[in-house]
Order: sequence, then structure tokens, then C-alpha cells
Amino acid sequence: MTDITQLSYALDTFYFLVCGALVMWMAAGFAMLESGLVRSKNTAEILTKNIALFAIACTMYLLCGYQIMYPGGNGGGILPAFGTLLGSENTVAMAMTNSDAPYYAQRADFFFQVVFVATAMSIVSGAVAERMKLWAFLLFAVVMTGFIYPVQGFWKWGGGFLDTAGFMDFAGSGIVHLTGASAALAGVLLLGPRKGKYRKDGMINAIPGANLPLATLGTFILWMGWFGFNGGSQLKLAGIENANAVAQIFVNTNAAACGGVIIALLVARIAFGKADLTMALNGALAGLVAITAEPLTPTAWASTLIGGAGGLIVVTAIILLDKCRIDDPVGAIAVHGCSGILGLLLVPMTNDSATLSGQLLGIITIFGWVFITSLLMWGMIKAIMGIRISDEQEYKGADLVECGVEAYPEFTQTGSK
Amino acid sequence: MTDITQLSYALDTFYFLVCGALVMWMAAGFAMLESGLVRSKNTAEILTKNIALFAIACTMYLLCGYQIMYPGGNGGGILPAFGTLLGSENTVAMAMTNSDAPYYAQRADFFFQVVFVATAMSIVSGAVAERMKLWAFLLFAVVMTGFIYPVQGFWKWGGGFLDTAGFMDFAGSGIVHLTGASAALAGVLLLGPRKGKYRKDGMINAIPGANLPLATLGTFILWMGWFGFNGGSQLKLAGIENANAVAQIFVNTNAAACGGVIIALLVARIAFGKADLTMALNGALAGLVAITAEPLTPTAWASTLIGGAGGLIVVTAIILLDKCRIDDPVGAIAVHGCSGILGLLLVPMTNDSATLSGQLLGIITIFGWVFITSLLMWGMIKAIMGIRISDEQEYKGADLVECGVEAYPEFTQTGSK
Amino acid sequence: MTDITQLSYALDTFYFLVCGALVMWMAAGFAMLESGLVRSKNTAEILTKNIALFAIACTMYLLCGYQIMYPGGNGGGILPAFGTLLGSENTVAMAMTNSDAPYYAQRADFFFQVVFVATAMSIVSGAVAERMKLWAFLLFAVVMTGFIYPVQGFWKWGGGFLDTAGFMDFAGSGIVHLTGASAALAGVLLLGPRKGKYRKDGMINAIPGANLPLATLGTFILWMGWFGFNGGSQLKLAGIENANAVAQIFVNTNAAACGGVIIALLVARIAFGKADLTMALNGALAGLVAITAEPLTPTAWASTLIGGAGGLIVVTAIILLDKCRIDDPVGAIAVHGCSGILGLLLVPMTNDSATLSGQLLGIITIFGWVFITSLLMWGMIKAIMGIRISDEQEYKGADLVECGVEAYPEFTQTGSK
Repeated sequence: MTDITQLSYALDTFYFLVCGALVMWMAAGFAMLESGLVRSKNTAEILTKNIALFAIACTMYLLCGYQIMYPGGNGGGILPAFGTLLGSENTVAMAMTNSDAPYYAQRADFFFQVVFVATAMSIVSGAVAERMKLWAFLLFAVVMTGFIYPVQGFWKWGGGFLDTAGFMDFAGSGIVHLTGASAALAGVLLLGPRKGKYRKDGMINAIPGANLPLATLGTFILWMGWFGFNGGSQLKLAGIENANAVAQIFVNTNAAACGGVIIALLVARIAFGKADLTMALNGALAGLVAITAEPLTPTAWASTLIGGAGGLIVVTAIILLDKCRIDDPVGAIAVHGCSGILGLLLVPMTNDSATLSGQLLGIITIFGWVFITSLLMWGMIKAIMGIRISDEQEYKGADLVECGVEAYPEFTQTGSK
Repeated sequence: MTDITQLSYALDTFYFLVCGALVMWMAAGFAMLESGLVRSKNTAEILTKNIALFAIACTMYLLCGYQIMYPGGNGGGILPAFGTLLGSENTVAMAMTNSDAPYYAQRADFFFQVVFVATAMSIVSGAVAERMKLWAFLLFAVVMTGFIYPVQGFWKWGGGFLDTAGFMDFAGSGIVHLTGASAALAGVLLLGPRKGKYRKDGMINAIPGANLPLATLGTFILWMGWFGFNGGSQLKLAGIENANAVAQIFVNTNAAACGGVIIALLVARIAFGKADLTMALNGALAGLVAITAEPLTPTAWASTLIGGAGGLIVVTAIILLDKCRIDDPVGAIAVHGCSGILGLLLVPMTNDSATLSGQLLGIITIFGWVFITSLLMWGMIKAIMGIRISDEQEYKGADLVECGVEAYPEFTQTGSK
Repeated sequence: MTDITQLSYALDTFYFLVCGALVMWMAAGFAMLESGLVRSKNTAEILTKNIALFAIACTMYLLCGYQIMYPGGNGGGILPAFGTLLGSENTVAMAMTNSDAPYYAQRADFFFQVVFVATAMSIVSGAVAERMKLWAFLLFAVVMTGFIYPVQGFWKWGGGFLDTAGFMDFAGSGIVHLTGASAALAGVLLLGPRKGKYRKDGMINAIPGANLPLATLGTFILWMGWFGFNGGSQLKLAGIENANAVAQIFVNTNAAACGGVIIALLVARIAFGKADLTMALNGALAGLVAITAEPLTPTAWASTLIGGAGGLIVVTAIILLDKCRIDDPVGAIAVHGCSGILGLLLVPMTNDSATLSGQLLGIITIFGWVFITSLLMWGMIKAIMGIRISDEQEYKGADLVECGVEAYPEFTQTGSK
């Protein structure tokens, strides 16, 4: 064990922790995005959901999710190795005497992985906003973050059959984003649309979000956090080749977001005659989701185009989903589901190791597993305690009903001075 | 001086600067948290307080605070060594020839320390919100950050008698958070509650905050910044052991916040029948404060429980303080004081080097020193210029009176279109 | 190529990427600052401008800006070397065999540089707010970020004639901030003031911003991002001397912001009798702009004073510009132009390598080039498509006209419930 090993280990650990902190920051991004895009009467409730789901995700992943997803390195197997993170585990120094030594702190790895789970769960909260019961949602979060997500995560990142089958998903267009969107779709289908969204005469009511600066802030937070999300997924920084790769991922991630903004804005201008801000925001996010499947092999230009394709598909998907009366207040299914699938399908264009069949297998497996288990779970919760607040509660708003507080008591008519 | 030393020095300096930038970011967190939890008519004023106190804290700590707190390394003594940061000081390169060489830039250390002072002072502004005079507060900030804080900081972190006595406070549950809360309590006692908070018939009026998304954003910012706060307090990253420690601190800090959220939300649900968002936010912060005294030795599970204990105590303390008619609009005394004491008392459970008597000595010393000097200082300011705005001014709001601007001129009835 | 070189390369690359991510984060800061300082009816539009200009800036700089600004290293010349970032370029590992090898990933350099361009462009959007056509602005952004900015950037940072002439501008008080302000001034002069701002009787109407917490958040975001902006401009971290320099830059940057806040607040108190929050915010930014020209050579105290001078000049300049009927809703010209010039002129006081004549040459060149080319460009756009929305549109607000959405539909009277 040389001094160089010591330093390299420290640098890689730090790189992981910084990237992990950036991904944790995405929790704030989702909270701001979603609270900006719902009506004021449902704002406090969605904020509560966002902070609570983050807490549940981290706790459940510590309890069992991490061990289910990465059983090998943690001495687990079918039963999770609960001991790993409970006791003193600093066997890393010992491990340094081996040639295939880990090159960063295991807890840094846990920290980086755990914030990904929370990201997947955050995607769900937006889609089911303004009508789902708070505690039903949180109960689902327990199962999703402790079981549904880790199992499919194991299949690829834990070395399972999707990994063997050649499915490529660098930072989680499928494992994180499609997973979140699939669970969201299952919930939305069981839940039904918000009251007043789809009129009997076939007209679709636009229900504008209450606070677009917050939604914009959330998008910028997510954009920034994505540097950690994708950049950290290289898993190693120390060394010229890895450093070049991380730098390329940063550039490509940024380029894709830019492409998404530009195309979504132009498409919105052409389709609606207006430069719809919410479409620009969703374009940025769709670009980011699309590049997440493979942020390393494309050139910066190709990344801009991949992001642009995400921007195109997200505007189209939002319109189509609305036509299908699938009510997703923040566009989460379009952004994370449709653009996630797009990103996965585009991988073979820049990465020779990927195949279209491998990608399709991954998409079908992830969607199938997450959608079906989620549908079962949402269905069970619906049977036991119900998943939707009453019509009267929906009219009054989830804030007073679920949280007993108002988000903006002085700004809206219902508010008390 | 080898190349390895050069690199290690650079890595540790960078680690310090990144952590310091995260703690600086907490200033934004406090500003958002507090501005979200006060009424709109007092929002611009509390924002002014927050940005001004940060500026004052950094300037006073540069002027004398740093030298009072860390006299040894800076060639000080009783009189602060004003010269240290004034002139060219790059003797670090020279020092590298010694065996007990500093391993990172001294100014990085200053940067990391200075943002802690500002954190302590930020705690005060929330508790005295909506009724204290702006300039009285800023005058207090001068003394607090230039003298009161550095003296008790010296007693432990500067190598003073609390350090010798075995008091353990890893990242400042006592030195930063209890200090802030003690000064706040002294101010609140002299200041009295807001008009209309406690009715003569014994009823307590809830005065809801004007903007809960901002308060939530503030909590997420503080949560993120806390990785720098606790993670940086290991003081060294380079090397496997230190890197493991920093990673463990990140995981534990996050786990404690999660425990705080979950328990506070459950307690609020049981106590009030509602999932009160503000309790979830205070739970997160209380969990973070509780783990700050010792974020290294507990396991991740123990950290979740420690955070959960913080979440329990903060809800209880907020209710009790309200019963005692101690009016703290944002719950700062409960979060930073009560949970800070809890965290300090729990250190011996996971760290054998700590003793209950040592912890009690530290708590009593810090509270005694800060509370008494603050009470004297607040009293002097009260005698000279008064500390409370008039009843009419309080009714109109501090914004127009102190700042001449409104925070939300278009959203509230008093606003001009 | 030793292991040390590998590690050093990775550390410097990471330092660049972290600093670049912080500067990217400034885009969110400008978006929040500007959206907080305009009226609610123009908020969604300025958010759209901010996210779109960032996307355009990154895309144009990739297309040609980077190659114009740094032709040497990229094999360019008069014609930009479009190939650089298009294909595989990882010649860095090869270059390591040379003695004058690059010491970090070229794409990390691109990432750091590209977010600077976006910063310069963000400055413009605030000054022309509330009355400029969205698409006219975006068209200008294309030319500004793809041509006007890179040309003057080349003159100094690319090794052009200003560099040879001894002009000193460490992190861009001139190249970024004065550039942004000069383009903004040209736009404002062609555009004219907002309706109702300057009355015929000579009175000046204050038009308060709709959301001061957002403006404060934006300021804190910019403050934090500035650590990357200035700290990254050292361009190298690895090694004791560089690490010391970066630490000093962090301390000085922070000190200058603090000085700016304190002086601006005191000046506002004396001039207006009130502690005007917006002046404190502009003071912080002016302090940061002033220190950007030379954040390394001053002591921390000198930095506080330089920042204080920025705080003084910005309040004065805002008042004077208003007297000249130059309507800049967010104070961008005062903050970035006046304080930028101040910072450049103060460089010789702490850095012996700089001369007053060299600084003046730089100021005149940058202002002359950017102002004249911008005026031409704005003029051409005005002739082709017009740059100002109609009076009726201005009365209704740019949001509905340009974006078809409202920023706060439930908080304002025009909003639909």
C-alpha cells in the first residue's frame, strides 16, 4: 500500500461524495419543480411527500435495498446481509492489501447509490399529485425503495441477468428514470385524472401550476445535480483516462440539456404559437434523461442532438398522454418514461457494445417488472386504505386535509390573514 | 517535500474549500427557511438580516474572531494577532519542511471556520423574527461573531479548558448550534412574544408562515450544506482512514436527517392528526443538529435513531416552549438548542472517549457563557436604542418600517399594484 | 508518465469540473434574481429568457465560440476548428509524454469556459427586462455568445493583443461582466425605458420587484457560484502554491461580497433612511464583481475594502443611471458595468504587474467593441423584426404575450383561480 494508493483512494472517495451530494440536491429540485407545477392548495402536501419520500428511501435502502441490489460485495445472497452497514465495517484498509482492492470507501458508494433510489421515487410523486392520499403514497414508497427498485437495479448494476445479456444503461435512463415513470403510470391509471381535468365534451382543461419561478428553480437544481448523477456514474476519477471520461460526461450532460431546451421551445412555438416556459423546462429534463443512458461515448454535438430528440419527444408525449386522458400534472411520465426509453434505444448509435435487442430486453424487463409490481402494490393499498382523497377533499385541496397547513396562507383567497 | 505532499496538500485544501462553500450555502438555507416561516410583511426585513449578518460575521471573524478562537497557530495570545490575515502569510510552503507541517492552506481553514460563525448567528435571526429592530440585531451580531462565539469556540476547538476536560463536540452541536440557540433565547426573553401570539384567555394563536415552499427549500439547502458542515469537520481527507471517516460522516449525517423527518412526521400525525409539513422540516433539522455532536462513531442505523430522537424532542420542545410563552417563530431554539443538547448527551453512547460529565460540563459552560453575555449585550442595546419595534410598526410589518420595501408587493392586500 | 501525474491530472480536472458546476449554478442565480426583481406579469418570460439563453450560449460556444476564443490550443486560426469537439479528441494521454503537457482534461476546460459565456449573456437579460421581445433577445444571444464575446475573450485570455499589452483581468470583471453590461447598455438605449417609469414631470416611479425572497436566493446562489468563478480561474490546484492561491481567492471573494453588503446597506440607510434590501443584494454582487479582476493579490482586508468600494459605487450608479433615464430594472449595468470598471482600475493597487494604462486600454477596448457591435446587432434586429413589445402587450405583461402562461396564476388579480 503506497502513498499514491492512499491519495487515489481519498480522491475517488471525495469524488463520489461530491457527486452524491449533488444527486441528493436533486431531491430539492424535484420538490421545487413539483410544488411549482401544482395548484397552491396542494403545495404543502407535495412538499411533505417529497421530503418524506427521501427519508423513507434512504432508510429502506439502508435496511434492505442496498443489500438486495448489491449482494456480492456485501456478503449477502438471497437474504440481505443486514450486518454490512450496522456495525464497524472498515475492512477497506485490509482489502488494500489485495490486488483487486476497492478503490474508494464503501460508504461513499452507499451514499451515491442511495440518492439514486430517492430520485426514482421522486418521479412518482409528481405524476400522482393533487389527488393521492399522503399515507398511501408513503406506504408505496416503502415497498418501492426497499424492494421494487433494488430488484431491477440488481439485474443490471448488481451483476444480474440484464447485465449478462448486454443491456447498457450508464447512469440510469432505465434503472432510475423509466423505473420511476413505470411506477407512476401504474399509480395514475388506478388513480384516475384530477377532477375537472377532462371534460365530458372532450375538452381538456389546462390546470396551470401556481409558481413557475419555483418550477424553473427546480429544473436548474436538477440540471446541476445531474452532473453528479451522470458524472459520478463513471465510478472512478483518478487517472487520466477516467478524468477525461468524467469531463466528457459533464460536457455531454450539459449539451443534452441545452439541446432539449432549444428543441422543446421551438416545437412549442410552432405547435402552440407561444414559447411555453413549462415546455422549455420539460425539454431540459427530457434532454438530461435521454443522455443518461450513455453520456460518455457520444460527441458533444451528438449529445446536443440526443437531448434535442428528448425535447421533441417530451412535448409530443405530453400532448399524447393528455389525449389518452392520462393525467400527469408535472409531465413526469413523458419526461422520465418516454425520454428514458428514447435514451436507451439511442445507445447503440454511439456505443458499439450495445445492441438494439439488448436495449429492448432491458426496457421491457424494467417496465414489465416495475409496472406490474407497482400495479399490484397500488391495488393492495387501494383495497386496504384507499389511494385517492374524496372529491370534497380534492376541491378543498390536499394541504388542509392531509397536512393541516396552507402553503401560501396570505396569497390566496382561502388563506387566513 | 515530495510530490505526494504537494498533491495531498492540494487535495485537503480543496476538500476544505468545497466543504466551506457548502456551509456558506447554509446561509441561503437559513434565509429561505426563515423568510418562508414568517408573515409576508416581515419577509424583506428577515432577508436583510440574513444577508447582513453573514457579511458582519465574516468581517468580524476576520477582524478578531479567528484570532481569539485559534490563537496558537496564529502567533496570538491574549491580544489577537491582527496581522495574520492582513499581509502576505504564505509561510505554508516553508512549514512543509517541518515534520509537524500544516497539511492544508491556512486560508482554507479560515474559510471553513468563518462560515460556521455565520451559521451560529443565523440561528438567532429566526427566533427574534417579526418584532426585533434591524439595527439592534446587527449590533448584537457584531459582538456575537467577534467575541461571544469565538471565546467559547476557543475553549474547545482552540484547545482551551473544555478540550482538556474531555468535552466532545465533533462538528458543533454545542459550539455552533447550542450557542446560537442560547443567544436567541436571551434575546427572545428580553423581547417578549409577537403581538397576538398569546391571548389573555390562555389560547395560543398559530401564526402561519407565508411561503412554505421557501421553507422547504431552505431545509433542503441546510441538509445539503450539512455534508460540508459535518464532513469538513474531519479536517482531513487524504488517506484511506480519513476518506473512510468522511464517507461515514456523510452517510450518518444523511441518515440522521431521515430519522428526524420520519419520527417528527409520525409524532405530528399522532399529536395533531395531520402530517404537519413544518414539523417534518424541523424534524430534519433536529436530526441534523443531533448527529452533529458525533457523526463519526455511530453506525448508520444508530445515526437514524439519533436523528429520530432529535425529531421526537423537537416536536415536544416546540409545544413546550409555546406553553411557556417563549415565542420563537421558526422553532430555532427547539431545533438548535434542545436537539443540540440531546446530541451532546448521546455522544458517550457511541464514543468511549466521551463521558457524561464532560458533556454536561460543556453544555453548562456554553449555555452559561453565551446566555449570560448575550443577555447583558441585548440588555445594553435595549437600554441604548431599544430592541423592539413599536406596536404600530409591528402591525404594519417590519418590511416597510425598516427596509422601505415589500417582499411581495403584488401578492398581498397591502401591496401596491 | 508517473502515477503522480495521473493523480494530479485527475485532481485538476475535478477541480475544474466542480468550479464549472458552480458557475453553471449561477444561471439559476440570475434567473431567480431577475425573476424576483421584475413584476409578476413579466416573470415567466424572463425565466424563459434565462433558461433559453443558457442553452443558446452553450450551443453557440460549442459551435464556434470556443474555437474563436482559444484558437491556438485547438489547431484553429482565423477559421474556427470545428473538429475539436466534434470527434474523438482524447489526445491528452499522448500529450502527457511532452514536457509542456496539458495538466487537465480539455473538455473540463471547455466546460469551465462555456458557463462563463452564459454568465455574460445572463447579465443582459435583466437590463432589458419587461419590454423586450423574447425572440429578438434570443437572436441577439446567438450572436453575442457565438461571436461578440469570444472575440474580445480571445484578445485577453486567448493570448491576443490585450494580453500582450499587459491588461490584467484575472477572472473577468471586464471580459465577462463589463462585456455583459456593455451589451445591455446598447440594448437599453435602443429599447427605451418601461412605460410609466419616468414621468413627464421629471418624477421617477419606483417599480418594485414582485418577489424579493427569490431575488435574495438568486444573490446567494451567485455568491456561492462565484467561488467557482474566481476560484476556478486560478486554472490549477495541484501543488502547495496553487492550493494556497485558490484558498486565498475563496477568502477574498467572500470578503469582497461582505464588504459590498455592509457599505451598500449603510449608504442606503444614509441616503434613503431605510435598509433597502435590494441595495444590500446589489452591494453583494458589486463587491463580487469588483474583486473578480484580481482576487489573488489583495489581502483579505483589502478585499473587504475593494468590495466595499463596489458597494458604494453601485448605489451611486443606480441613482445616477436612473437620473439619466436609463431604465435597468435589476441594476445590471451598475452592478456589472460600473463595478467591473472599478475592479479593473483597482488591480494596479495590489498587483505590480498591472498598470493603469493597461487597464484603461482593456476597459476601452472591451467597452468599445462590445457596445458598438451590440448596438449594430440590436439595430439590425430592430430593423428586421423589432425589439420591443407593443404598449398594449407591455401593459398586459410579457408572460401572456410571449409565453402564454402566467408565473403566479393564483396570486395576482389577472390570474385565473
